[in-house]
Amino acid sequence: MEPYDELLARLRRIHAIDSVSGLLGWDEQVNLPPGAAALRGEQHAVLADLSHAECCAPRLGELIGILEAGSAGLEPDAAVVVRQIRREYDRATRLPAEFVREKAAQSSRGYHAWAAARAAGDFAAYAPVLEKNLELARREAGYLGFGSAPYDAMLDLHDPGMTAAAVERLFAELRRELVPFVREIAASPVRPKAGALRGFPVAGQRAFLREVTERLGFDYRRGRIDVSLHPFCSGGGDDVRMTTRFNEDEPLDSLFSSIHETGHGLYEQGLPGAHPGTALAIHAGMAVHESQSRLWENQVARGRGFWRFFEPRFRELFPAQTAAVTSDELYLAVNAVAPTPIRVDADEVTYNLHIILRFEIERRLFAGTLAVADLPAAWNELSRELLGIDPKDDREGVLQDVHWSGGAFGYFPSYTLGNMIAAQLWHRVRLLRPGLEGDFARGDFTWLLGWLRENIHAQGRRLDALTLVRQVTGEELSPRPLMRYLRERYGSLYL
Amino acid sequence: MEPYDELLARLRRIHAIDSVSGLLGWDEQVNLPPGAAALRGEQHAVLADLSHAECCAPRLGELIGILEAGSAGLEPDAAVVVRQIRREYDRATRLPAEFVREKAAQSSRGYHAWAAARAAGDFAAYAPVLEKNLELARREAGYLGFGSAPYDAMLDLHDPGMTAAAVERLFAELRRELVPFVREIAASPVRPKAGALRGFPVAGQRAFLREVTERLGFDYRRGRIDVSLHPFCSGGGDDVRMTTRFNEDEPLDSLFSSIHETGHGLYEQGLPGAHPGTALAIHAGMAVHESQSRLWENQVARGRGFWRFFEPRFRELFPAQTAAVTSDELYLAVNAVAPTPIRVDADEVTYNLHIILRFEIERRLFAGTLAVADLPAAWNELSRELLGIDPKDDREGVLQDVHWSGGAFGYFPSYTLGNMIAAQLWHRVRLLRPGLEGDFARGDFTWLLGWLRENIHAQGRRLDALTLVRQVTGEELSPRPLMRYLRERYGSLYL
Repeated sequence: MEPYDELLARLRRIHAIDSVSGLLGWDEQVNLPPGAAALRGEQHAVLADLSHAECCAPRLGELIGILEAGSAGLEPDAAVVVRQIRREYDRATRLPAEFVREKAAQSSRGYHAWAAARAAGDFAAYAPVLEKNLELARREAGYLGFGSAPYDAMLDLHDPGMTAAAVERLFAELRRELVPFVREIAASPVRPKAGALRGFPVAGQRAFLREVTERLGFDYRRGRIDVSLHPFCSGGGDDVRMTTRFNEDEPLDSLFSSIHETGHGLYEQGLPGAHPGTALAIHAGMAVHESQSRLWENQVARGRGFWRFFEPRFRELFPAQTAAVTSDELYLAVNAVAPTPIRVDADEVTYNLHIILRFEIERRLFAGTLAVADLPAAWNELSRELLGIDPKDDREGVLQDVHWSGGAFGYFPSYTLGNMIAAQLWHRVRLLRPGLEGDFARGDFTWLLGWLRENIHAQGRRLDALTLVRQVTGEELSPRPLMRYLRERYGSLYL
Repeated sequence: MEPYDELLARLRRIHAIDSVSGLLGWDEQVNLPPGAAALRGEQHAVLADLSHAECCAPRLGELIGILEAGSAGLEPDAAVVVRQIRREYDRATRLPAEFVREKAAQSSRGYHAWAAARAAGDFAAYAPVLEKNLELARREAGYLGFGSAPYDAMLDLHDPGMTAAAVERLFAELRRELVPFVREIAASPVRPKAGALRGFPVAGQRAFLREVTERLGFDYRRGRIDVSLHPFCSGGGDDVRMTTRFNEDEPLDSLFSSIHETGHGLYEQGLPGAHPGTALAIHAGMAVHESQSRLWENQVARGRGFWRFFEPRFRELFPAQTAAVTSDELYLAVNAVAPTPIRVDADEVTYNLHIILRFEIERRLFAGTLAVADLPAAWNELSRELLGIDPKDDREGVLQDVHWSGGAFGYFPSYTLGNMIAAQLWHRVRLLRPGLEGDFARGDFTWLLGWLRENIHAQGRRLDALTLVRQVTGEELSPRPLMRYLRERYGSLYL
């Protein structure tokens, strides 16, 4: 077998193992009997071990070396594949096995310590976990050659090539514009009618979201949606598994979480299938992934065109529940803005301030300018500055998120980078197709999906997020399209 | 690590991989989007390969050798573990990799060829598959040291230690008694009322079968039940996955298939969990497994006590649907007997004749006294002799079952061996606890489950089926308890 073909076969095999791990994770959230948690942990551990062994296989390293040595003769796609697997191979082989074990054990301990600390509102009990996780993160950055810029190592993990300096520049500009805009909206007398949407039977919600997600383009021959405690999208390619949850008094929660996951799912279904497990077939990083979910959830599904098409069907399915709600009231409920201390409850406008807060904290922690012990005070001060909110305790503040308990630093920024990318793509497609909202009002989302398929999905991981955005929109990533979009949609409703 | 502990760790690891394969199989029947079939095939193949590599690992062979050499000093349980893994290790290492690949490919081809041949009623198109499968089976028997008795190799695969001679003796005796008994019932004027049970909503059926299976003792903290095209039970230990199917006009079909799978599930949940993947933690073979499903489905759930307890609830859930059905009519519907050419549609009484037919065919094929080309004629002749039925074509005859298409010879006998074991266990427990039907009439199944847990489940694979039956019932396995049970239950209803 030619070295490149042998490499592809190995990556395809690793991908198959990892896709099974992904399915185990999905099954754990959707189906697993409570008594089977220990067995599932063991299954996960064995598969992780088998995957790791294949990722570190000396023959894989040899193949990469052979292909790099002859790289002048490689096709451009093959060069992309080799570059990406070099990155992953180094990552798999540079981390000592002992370190990987220690980190996995600490991640599990950290999760349980965090859950207990959050329940008790006891930050002091959580602080040693954070100290340890930071120490492990710094060591990991060192192994990966990021010793002098450990936070860059964290960002790079989720978004290849992303740096703290780039994020800081983008977030500083966004912050300057967004903070006063949120203050303006908060002062607006316009308010969505609280509790106007109640008593929506789950069967009807299920039918409506199926119609919506199918019309947006999700292919149910290659995926499904189920119920879990927290919505997510897993799997990929021909087997995308999304989840949602239902609350009879929050029909928009289930709908928008499903559309969000559908955005992720459309991306996964649109990635090229020819060489599974290679950079040609995987997403371009978490920021780009998030841009796809946010674009469909926010720019598309909170817009006038979408509701012009779907409102009649919504009222048809739920005539009694919507009888007292006008079209304007429904649209305002869809676009409700209300600052809250809790990130996962935040609306589209204020959400980014929650992320800027977390980025600021992470940056200082890694720079050594913020001590873990001072974290709650710094959090609360930033919450006042950014959101105008005093968390009433650490449960509403620094203890609210799970991410850091497992050592996932540098993940939060991708949410707002994703929002920026979504808005910049949105700006671009509206220039290219001025009648886009008219398409949506006729229930036609095919042009938009086709454009994303061609310009984003088909790219796989050929380019990093910033390069991809520049290539597709003709401009550097910037917070301006996001601010323009927010002003346009929310200014017209609230100001 | 001590050699025995190292062996246990390796078996635990293999078990984890195999349990993931099992979950993939369950998911395939219950959840898999249709477009993901190829991906699932790839996932299966990679896991099979990883498991095979661990099963053939030279270190595993070394450990077995070390433990066998010092076997005088082994605890009895450890000796059981070593004996079983020797058997599996030899099996894994004696089959050449090329043969395993050829067999897997042929099994897949055979399945599709069978499905097409059955649809077309074209035995000639299926005959080459059977020829090839028989040839592979003979070669496999040769590799495993059964060259002179290849059919014994097939039986041994599903029921360790079982031989064609033993089965033939048991089946000949059963046949002598059962054929005339079935003729008597077929001539009876008593007939269940056709179509008396119609229009049972699925939600109610689901609720009823959940109550029933929970009361029988299935632990839903360690398992679940879902819907699939054909009911089955998979998984084990803390994660047993059963399936059923629903038809509004066949409420007893779903109920009894669920109870059947619950019997399998109770056995799996009752196997000792301490050393997963060892003979201490796995079932004693397919015949014993089938005895558990049949005991609960037939002896228990088709009995008077069971219905005395559950009939009021059944009528409460389905008042309109059961209004015109008397208790006697309901009980007769539960115990309907009607010869049919199709095995999977057969009742408890005639079912065993379908199995005797298949055993007779398999035995002759392997002995070389029946040519594949003569199979349809032999089938139809046996069908007349045993069931008094002329299949109207090969779809109703030799093409009806999937088993042989994948090379699964020697599996069918375990169904009737299971029925015999169930009846012999039933005879025993009724002697030990004469008031058992009274327990059931009060909704109490705990004594029976406790007895099975202690006498059958807790044994794991320490003993082969015949030895286990002898130990537990004090007698050699015989068809007499089965005939006594059938005469008692069905004679009183029909004769």
